[in-house]
Amino acid sequence: MSIILPSTATHLDRLQSLRQVMQQAQVDAYIIGNNDPHLSEYLPDHWKCIEWLTGFTGEAASVVVTLHDAALWTDSRYFIQAADQLGDLPIRLMKMGLPGVPSLTEWLSHQLLTLHPAPLHIVGLDGRLFSAAEADDLRDRLVPSVSISSDAPMIMLRHDCRLFDTIWTDRPDLPQGALELYDASLSGEERPSRLERIRKAIGPDSSLLLTALDEVAWSFDVRGTDIACTPVVTAYGLITPTTSILFVDPAKVSDEVRTTLQRDGIEIAPYDTLIDYLQSCPSTGKIIAVPSTTSAAVMRALKAEHEEEQLLATSPIALMKAVKNEVELRGFASAMLKDGIALTRFLIWIEEELRKGTPLTEWDCVEKIKSLRSLLPGYREESFDAIVAWREHGALPHYSPSPQNPTTIEGNGLLLIDTGGQYIEGTTDVTRTLPIGHISDAERRDYTLVLCGHIRLALACFPVGTRGDQLDALARYDLWRDGKTYRHGTGHGVGHFLSVHEGPQSIRMQHNPTALLPGMVCSNEPAIYLEGRYGIRHENCLLVRPLHPATDCPDATPSMEGEFGDFLCFDNLTLCPIDPKGIMPELMTAEQLTWLDDYNRHVCACLEPHLTDAENAWLRSYTHRE
Amino acid sequence: MSIILPSTATHLDRLQSLRQVMQQAQVDAYIIGNNDPHLSEYLPDHWKCIEWLTGFTGEAASVVVTLHDAALWTDSRYFIQAADQLGDLPIRLMKMGLPGVPSLTEWLSHQLLTLHPAPLHIVGLDGRLFSAAEADDLRDRLVPSVSISSDAPMIMLRHDCRLFDTIWTDRPDLPQGALELYDASLSGEERPSRLERIRKAIGPDSSLLLTALDEVAWSFDVRGTDIACTPVVTAYGLITPTTSILFVDPAKVSDEVRTTLQRDGIEIAPYDTLIDYLQSCPSTGKIIAVPSTTSAAVMRALKAEHEEEQLLATSPIALMKAVKNEVELRGFASAMLKDGIALTRFLIWIEEELRKGTPLTEWDCVEKIKSLRSLLPGYREESFDAIVAWREHGALPHYSPSPQNPTTIEGNGLLLIDTGGQYIEGTTDVTRTLPIGHISDAERRDYTLVLCGHIRLALACFPVGTRGDQLDALARYDLWRDGKTYRHGTGHGVGHFLSVHEGPQSIRMQHNPTALLPGMVCSNEPAIYLEGRYGIRHENCLLVRPLHPATDCPDATPSMEGEFGDFLCFDNLTLCPIDPKGIMPELMTAEQLTWLDDYNRHVCACLEPHLTDAENAWLRSYTHRE
Repeated sequence: MSIILPSTATHLDRLQSLRQVMQQAQVDAYIIGNNDPHLSEYLPDHWKCIEWLTGFTGEAASVVVTLHDAALWTDSRYFIQAADQLGDLPIRLMKMGLPGVPSLTEWLSHQLLTLHPAPLHIVGLDGRLFSAAEADDLRDRLVPSVSISSDAPMIMLRHDCRLFDTIWTDRPDLPQGALELYDASLSGEERPSRLERIRKAIGPDSSLLLTALDEVAWSFDVRGTDIACTPVVTAYGLITPTTSILFVDPAKVSDEVRTTLQRDGIEIAPYDTLIDYLQSCPSTGKIIAVPSTTSAAVMRALKAEHEEEQLLATSPIALMKAVKNEVELRGFASAMLKDGIALTRFLIWIEEELRKGTPLTEWDCVEKIKSLRSLLPGYREESFDAIVAWREHGALPHYSPSPQNPTTIEGNGLLLIDTGGQYIEGTTDVTRTLPIGHISDAERRDYTLVLCGHIRLALACFPVGTRGDQLDALARYDLWRDGKTYRHGTGHGVGHFLSVHEGPQSIRMQHNPTALLPGMVCSNEPAIYLEGRYGIRHENCLLVRPLHPATDCPDATPSMEGEFGDFLCFDNLTLCPIDPKGIMPELMTAEQLTWLDDYNRHVCACLEPHLTDAENAWLRSYTHRE
Repeated sequence: MSIILPSTATHLDRLQSLRQVMQQAQVDAYIIGNNDPHLSEYLPDHWKCIEWLTGFTGEAASVVVTLHDAALWTDSRYFIQAADQLGDLPIRLMKMGLPGVPSLTEWLSHQLLTLHPAPLHIVGLDGRLFSAAEADDLRDRLVPSVSISSDAPMIMLRHDCRLFDTIWTDRPDLPQGALELYDASLSGEERPSRLERIRKAIGPDSSLLLTALDEVAWSFDVRGTDIACTPVVTAYGLITPTTSILFVDPAKVSDEVRTTLQRDGIEIAPYDTLIDYLQSCPSTGKIIAVPSTTSAAVMRALKAEHEEEQLLATSPIALMKAVKNEVELRGFASAMLKDGIALTRFLIWIEEELRKGTPLTEWDCVEKIKSLRSLLPGYREESFDAIVAWREHGALPHYSPSPQNPTTIEGNGLLLIDTGGQYIEGTTDVTRTLPIGHISDAERRDYTLVLCGHIRLALACFPVGTRGDQLDALARYDLWRDGKTYRHGTGHGVGHFLSVHEGPQSIRMQHNPTALLPGMVCSNEPAIYLEGRYGIRHENCLLVRPLHPATDCPDATPSMEGEFGDFLCFDNLTLCPIDPKGIMPELMTAEQLTWLDDYNRHVCACLEPHLTDAENAWLRSYTHRE
């Protein structure tokens, strides 16, 4: 029996309906995550179950509904927003990380085992929407492994509870974007060659299951429009020693595309048949899968049929994809140039509008940047939801302005602008913090210290084999010496016309065993956030490249060939001026000041042929340091 | 039947005798490590089996002898020395880390399975002299775990092969040093309180087996003289919820000491009875042991009888011992002061002797430093074998001079001096690189860059929770930018009148999950080694302490209470001048130059009351920067 909810149903109605279907399914508690079956960063509307159920629109959320109670967990970025959006709804807000706040599994165990004891509790979830790693973790925490007395209450986990299918009747469709072919002139590699390289990487007699959408896109050199900000198509991939199969809705594949893929040795199979295929295909050698990006449902099918599956913490594709080839790097350079042009025009525009006294909102800036980028060839969309944050909004690291809550930029202060573009030949991500009017000494000091960290990292050289977590402190050193820090990573990998956030490398405090390799692109974004006051972030994209001692460090004392092994260093990819009027020069070393001037001169020189005389004159004056 | 070797037996005779007893014991291959039963860093003569067998005296060595062949593995520090000491002996020298050099287990597998196939091979070792972790690793690598056909050759590992007991007839005695009581006036804690604290740390119903000699010494607040450079006694410890047992040769324990220990709740049991005790004692709760510092023989006894042993990568004692209390820190301060006095006098002496033209050798300096330290109260011995390395010797990170191969210090160059003392109240470790005569621009540049790294780390502040591997790059940054590095860690923990090298914290490139905590003492020793030319190292000991924002960073912009969490920073403990005549000031920032001047001024001020007027005048002039 399904429950028909009117489209005017309130969140309370929805919650009650969920409890009804839970009772029908004999489920005592239902765990809901914010995921799609590919564990994508951006969620298609079809999968926004938590938003539909509770009204909460934040990215980070988990919900548990029991027959008697309900709770939502989110992190500090969303505490205020969640309280606001949940309103009077009988769902407890669990502020993760605050003292005394129980974890999801602690709370649920307490609910079931202490408050509502029963011999057996069934906890349900939709195994398609949890990674195998998450599902295992829930099991480990909820279902005790030690032997307990026979009359102790038991908790059982069921993975087949697709309860929203029943109650969410006006649910948005699955994304319907077409499968698009990408091209070797942009990706730098023909499909058969890439597939062969993947086979070599995974070894003979092995197959690789691809579940992350950007890994599918890269491996088969295809793109799509199914996910916001990320040009991917909803699909799974399977690469065996003899076949390459793309599991994708056939309606998304034109005849021409199908013919090209077949020519390149790629079979198309219907999206929904993956699990059947895994369960029925002959077991030839081992299958490699990654539990952190493979859904529990798919992993279960794999494990049931293949004794020799091999689980890896990191996909081999992630590392191959992270190391960009020369064609991809040319594409990045072109995208960065376009970004620089658009952002310079934006800087001119905002300066003029503010001087004229035009009332500008944060959202006006978002729209202006989007429109300036879209004038440039190959621009497709934003690479993430733009952040334009005035004054205290800048202190919220994931603040996004909206037309509904306009904030006007007026008076003095810092305007933090973090945006990026998807161009057909590359992806960008850049943050500038604009001093508007007169800024305080405190703002100026912090602007400078963040910039010192940015420069210290940009100037780093390091031996082959160095990890990003070894370099992270360089970007924090100056802030740390003021007793301040930022609670996010300093750098993430950047995909090539793919996800703006990718692994496996990172530059952050947490340990990450991945060494930085030549060809990797990484953001460099130290920051500071002072609650209720301002936020500052300076972000460029860096390319890891080999150090050439003869040209890069001509003053070094000579050593014997190979005595110290090979070194790497960074090239700046981003071409957007940094306003020198924000700095306190006395806090910077002579070398850091030289870096700033050299960087701005480099930006001017690269953009010069593409700007008007007036724009060039403005840019030279903007970047001139007294 | 034992084999009597004459005391004039050559290494070749010894090797042949070993093969004879191997045949008697039906052992096809014998693996020998450089360990004592406590996995100590410094080896008592009794356990120097490899030196006795092969003549090789290097620390890092493993030997395999088969009936047909033999090989010795060592690392790059000892390649030249090992080739020299092995001479014509039929033992292959395996240079670890060089391309194409097989590992011990690769070589042995090849010997047994390919060159000399047989249905069953027995590989022997003395399980007392391998850590449980090493023994497990050997098993994993030698004995294949996958099912193989029934007629495939098998390798079996035997842990009970004490073959040297039979052939080494004039073997030195086990160390005979007395058990000495340490004192709460120096350790800062009464024995019953410390034992209670340990019991709390390991949890109720748990027992802790102590095998590392410095952990035994710290836990029971005792010391000894059994190991060179490390004031410990040969003993095991067992701390259960109700008893504390010290397993030590009763001949080492005077009646008075025994009475005191008994008063403090500590029982004495004979050293040899540990394994029997573990096998016979009632299993009450779980026993905690650390496989990396517990011998395979002891671990086997533990595992056989206690199903609930808990194996930890790091001993809980290591962390407790690493965090020094106020009394220990006062002791460190006092030891550092004495060290500063002795080293200042040494610097004056060497300057005078060289000016007079006295022919000085590296060894003369070792002796002089030792004698100057020994004039100060509470000095016991060196904390490690002193390094005094002239010119190219400095490029060998573990070079030790000896009276047998005297090298005279003459002409111009760099003299690297790395020494340390065991004082009753604390342990020191300090390196200075002395520019002698005129040094080259290359030497001066590298002297400066190493110093820049040293200062950059010394000035670091960092949030609570930061690991040493996050900070390591700060000390390498300047060298890295010249395409150079050093292949050892930047910092190790320093024991309190215990081992000069201790964990669990470290500051190094390799990941170490241990966060730095207030009260930890760490060395700060960036370096550079240019083969055949010179070595430079600047080393101080640092204390981790809380950052006090109001006084430590008064210029920082104010933030809300707790907005950024608590921070830590370093205090310098070492009080030994750094020669400013070695630097190129233009390579240092203004802040680094200020640090250098402030540090030297601080050293002068601390030492001033303890030096003569002439010495003070010399020190002021030595540290004066133009």
